[in-house]
Amino acid sequence: MHRGAFTAISFLLGALTSMASGYLGMKVAVFSNVRTTVSAQKPGWTACFNTAFRAGAVMGFALCGLGIIMLYVTMLAYRVHYPSPDQWVHLTECITGYGLGGSVIAMFGRVGGGIYTKAADVGADLVGKVVHGIPEDDPRNPATIADNVGDNVGDVAGMGSDLFGSFAESTCAALVIGSSIGVTGGWDAMVFPVIVSAVGIFVCLLSSFIATDLKTVKAENEVESALKIQLIATTILMVPAVYFVSIVYLPSSFDLQATVGDAVFTLHPWEATTCVAMGTVGGLIIGLVTEYYTSHSYSPVREVANSCKTGAATNMIYGIALGYKSAIIPVLVLSVVVYGSFTMCDMYGVALAAIGFLANLATGLTIDVYGPVCDNAGGIAEMAELDPSVREKTDALDAAGNTTAAIGKGFAIGSAALVSLALFGAFVTRIRHASNDALFANGVNMLEPLTFAFLIIGGMIPFAFAAMTMKSVGLAAMEMVMEVQRQFDEKPHLLDANPTERPDYDACIAISTKASLKEMVPPGAMVIFTPLLTGIFFGVTAVSGLLVGALVASVQLAISMSNSGGAWDNAKKYIEKQSPDSELKGKGSDIHKAAVVGDTVGDPFKDTSGPALNIVMKLMAVLSLVFADTFFAVNGGGGVFNLS
Amino acid sequence: MHRGAFTAISFLLGALTSMASGYLGMKVAVFSNVRTTVSAQKPGWTACFNTAFRAGAVMGFALCGLGIIMLYVTMLAYRVHYPSPDQWVHLTECITGYGLGGSVIAMFGRVGGGIYTKAADVGADLVGKVVHGIPEDDPRNPATIADNVGDNVGDVAGMGSDLFGSFAESTCAALVIGSSIGVTGGWDAMVFPVIVSAVGIFVCLLSSFIATDLKTVKAENEVESALKIQLIATTILMVPAVYFVSIVYLPSSFDLQATVGDAVFTLHPWEATTCVAMGTVGGLIIGLVTEYYTSHSYSPVREVANSCKTGAATNMIYGIALGYKSAIIPVLVLSVVVYGSFTMCDMYGVALAAIGFLANLATGLTIDVYGPVCDNAGGIAEMAELDPSVREKTDALDAAGNTTAAIGKGFAIGSAALVSLALFGAFVTRIRHASNDALFANGVNMLEPLTFAFLIIGGMIPFAFAAMTMKSVGLAAMEMVMEVQRQFDEKPHLLDANPTERPDYDACIAISTKASLKEMVPPGAMVIFTPLLTGIFFGVTAVSGLLVGALVASVQLAISMSNSGGAWDNAKKYIEKQSPDSELKGKGSDIHKAAVVGDTVGDPFKDTSGPALNIVMKLMAVLSLVFADTFFAVNGGGGVFNLS
Repeated sequence: MHRGAFTAISFLLGALTSMASGYLGMKVAVFSNVRTTVSAQKPGWTACFNTAFRAGAVMGFALCGLGIIMLYVTMLAYRVHYPSPDQWVHLTECITGYGLGGSVIAMFGRVGGGIYTKAADVGADLVGKVVHGIPEDDPRNPATIADNVGDNVGDVAGMGSDLFGSFAESTCAALVIGSSIGVTGGWDAMVFPVIVSAVGIFVCLLSSFIATDLKTVKAENEVESALKIQLIATTILMVPAVYFVSIVYLPSSFDLQATVGDAVFTLHPWEATTCVAMGTVGGLIIGLVTEYYTSHSYSPVREVANSCKTGAATNMIYGIALGYKSAIIPVLVLSVVVYGSFTMCDMYGVALAAIGFLANLATGLTIDVYGPVCDNAGGIAEMAELDPSVREKTDALDAAGNTTAAIGKGFAIGSAALVSLALFGAFVTRIRHASNDALFANGVNMLEPLTFAFLIIGGMIPFAFAAMTMKSVGLAAMEMVMEVQRQFDEKPHLLDANPTERPDYDACIAISTKASLKEMVPPGAMVIFTPLLTGIFFGVTAVSGLLVGALVASVQLAISMSNSGGAWDNAKKYIEKQSPDSELKGKGSDIHKAAVVGDTVGDPFKDTSGPALNIVMKLMAVLSLVFADTFFAVNGGGGVFNLS
Repeated sequence: MHRGAFTAISFLLGALTSMASGYLGMKVAVFSNVRTTVSAQKPGWTACFNTAFRAGAVMGFALCGLGIIMLYVTMLAYRVHYPSPDQWVHLTECITGYGLGGSVIAMFGRVGGGIYTKAADVGADLVGKVVHGIPEDDPRNPATIADNVGDNVGDVAGMGSDLFGSFAESTCAALVIGSSIGVTGGWDAMVFPVIVSAVGIFVCLLSSFIATDLKTVKAENEVESALKIQLIATTILMVPAVYFVSIVYLPSSFDLQATVGDAVFTLHPWEATTCVAMGTVGGLIIGLVTEYYTSHSYSPVREVANSCKTGAATNMIYGIALGYKSAIIPVLVLSVVVYGSFTMCDMYGVALAAIGFLANLATGLTIDVYGPVCDNAGGIAEMAELDPSVREKTDALDAAGNTTAAIGKGFAIGSAALVSLALFGAFVTRIRHASNDALFANGVNMLEPLTFAFLIIGGMIPFAFAAMTMKSVGLAAMEMVMEVQRQFDEKPHLLDANPTERPDYDACIAISTKASLKEMVPPGAMVIFTPLLTGIFFGVTAVSGLLVGALVASVQLAISMSNSGGAWDNAKKYIEKQSPDSELKGKGSDIHKAAVVGDTVGDPFKDTSGPALNIVMKLMAVLSLVFADTFFAVNGGGGVFNLS
């Protein structure tokens, strides 16, 4: 009874913190947008870069700090009820609600926000650029304001709650798996995962001074390297920092029960550090590979740009192929991290590696928020009809942010995969204990008919989810186009050089808002109810197949979709930078039009469906863990149908 | 020693039969193309439909018959060496080489053929339609002949060897898994899977008279239903036919050792029949769902067509989403068949269900060959400048073939998934016996670090494969466009109404030939070497993860890619049928141009990458099975690295 109530409280706290983070991010972004525009009017690059970067940092550090404080305070409060170390297993079980709360909000934030922003973005692009040939962010386009609002809703609030969800879940997974450490190692050892995240904040804080004070940005070409240095520096500094706290907080050796079989792992601080480090370094490698495939400084994106010469169709073929191919190295890195951390410290190692992936979350978030702030600063410059040099400046800042944000996505995807695996491990352990080793004692057999059947079904969920979210964006974008078209038709003077009529921005905002609220429900419901119904009707062997199938397919699809989208975006930007008499003809040419098609398709790929797939796998896993006891209560884990 | 030699001989025979089937198909198609054109000039529909349909039937029945005779004769020959029933396990092991041989050729046939035909098709479309606005199959387009040759190479020869591979593999899988039945049930019981396939031929033969004689095609709207009746009739007739032979050939009860654990299944003829029937009926359901998602008679394709109103980008988004979504019901059907057949007759049931999916192979092949024959008949009509009514007739025949071929794809995909699972089961059994129950006795644990790491890697293979093959098509198509452009530039009178110059068809054919031969090597090598190297270096637990991961991802991707491609193709055809003053504006409009982009992207989706993924999963599984003993020989299945 207590446990249920405590889990529910954790859930509410997680959900509230997630919402608070998103709200905070939007507030900061809105305040900083115009300031960045103003500082971009000053000479030099330092002022405007620092304004935008610091805006991102407010969000990054506030979110991480808030998340850790809430989590730790909740744990301390629950400790009053569960004072003795052998009760801490229950304490951590109640804490998983915090991760679940964060994830559920993350799901709706990411999907809803993604639909909102991309409906506006795609709609504005289709009408503005394709049909009427007016520039981006032109105030005469009625969808412009919706597009700008969308940047805040989707790219700041949605992304913030997404990453908060990742952080909360990975920490909770590590806590629940490592709860038995408390018995021999005490409270300090048990809360080690929280400490690692906390150390991450300090490391990020330290390295943020590199960008703002030590090695300030003085020229356009320094922007991207400044952001990249941030990520690399935090990764390098993390390893000794984690080793230091592992010696302080962890006992010199501690025991851990294996998930499968009866083996007991005897672990030491260096092994825990290695697992965290594998995650951090693995994340950086995945990030750099992502950058290679999505930045127009390298050959893959240039190949995509070249393929536009023969039209939109070859652009599509090349872009999709690039996305699929870009998953090869990240998947290999992931499998090395899985194998390494799993062999070294069992599921605890996997959970620590997941935390390692997110150790530089504060920096990642800083850069992620920095991007939309610069983007909107450019929009304000355009609408306020400032000198074009201001817009050029914010565009350059934004472009560097796009590339570096791609690196950040590497960390998020790696973390999501490992968190899901760790949560699945925790689920198996929970069922194993509940059934007194009658279930899962020898692991999870794939050659069980029910498991295999659900393995295929699990593999289908991410595809169905991507289909639903993509189509929502397409549908809402088409509505947006119709609305804008209607306004152009009804107000013929809207497009004059000095328009005498004002577009109805609110109508467009209403379309995005309505679409996002309505359309986020079906995919969200599918992700939430599939594991619940599977567990209740088909039992725990079915759930294990479902989770693993969803994990395998989500990883591939998430990486592919994000990178295809990023590559199309940057291929378009690459073509825009070419002069009209070069081979790629530059802006406004047929080649550019073909590239715009790719960019438009890529929008829901990279900002709605792709990143939301991270949440799909995690949310399904954490739900199964939280409801493990419920599943077990139905026919001893056999489910209502009690199929063998 | 003997076993190695026998396996090698089977391999060669399988490969030769596959090549012979492809060659035969091309010969028949080439002979029948022009005859179909000639009979299309006659009044009425019966003559031309029957000509094309019978051409397909020649290929369908020849291929199935040849496959079964070769297989059965080989088995009889080997029986001389392995006379006693307890040696038949070795006999069936040697026979797996036949399946492997068929698959390897199928892989290269499908990939090479797919690249050949789509390079020519996409290239011809891009230049002909998009750049110069000349109609399809216009003899002034230098790529036209390459396109027609490609239809024979890819859609007839490539597809024929693909389906021969499916047939050979599913039969071999059932033989190897059911080999122990021979001990109690004798030769007749053991060869039951071959008998089922043989019965399928007779059932298909019987029902083929419905189309050609009993209920002949008399009007345009009867074409599609005539073809559909073929598939439904064979499915319905198969069930009693299989039940009849199961009573005749199988003993009234027989024992089968379970793959996992020590259970022994006591089976009866009705259970074997049920497994076959589940496959046949499941295949039909998947086929009908495929038709629903790819025919323009239903709402999904019309939605895609409508999305073209806002341009190519929304068309792409809708088409991809449709493909992803179209996998939901097929996957559910597959998982029901997996669960049902697996629980009922263990892996033997799965293998029988896989044969059930392919029981109407002869009919499926007939329809599959019928399509390209009509397509090329239309091309000949265009080039011979016959009356436009001839072309309209062949186009109608072709369109019906496209839709019905989509139903056939359902059978192929279902069969591939189940064959792969059955082969994986056989692999596990083989390793289990070789290790005297030290390995896999309790099944295959997914929570083994190495297995899980390779599960993710396995999931990546289909994506990498799709990327490679798609890009090959894109690359070759771009070369083709350049070549055609060069010819248009150098011979300015090529496009005159009465051209005084002849295009250089050979140069275009050479591009397709060279591209297909060169580009099929890397993806083929990846699929062949990945399981071999995994088994040798990382051992059998790694292989099991790899195979299952590849299976899960391949199923989703194969269904999605095939259906997206089919939907785009038919959305374009739907728009072409509209009048210029209707909402969709019809041929030549901007809406139509947006639809052409989708169709062009869909070409490699549905005819190169998508269907080849069926072979990817099967080939990896059969290779692992054939080399199981080799893998076990390296450190007792631990591989060179001997990781735990």
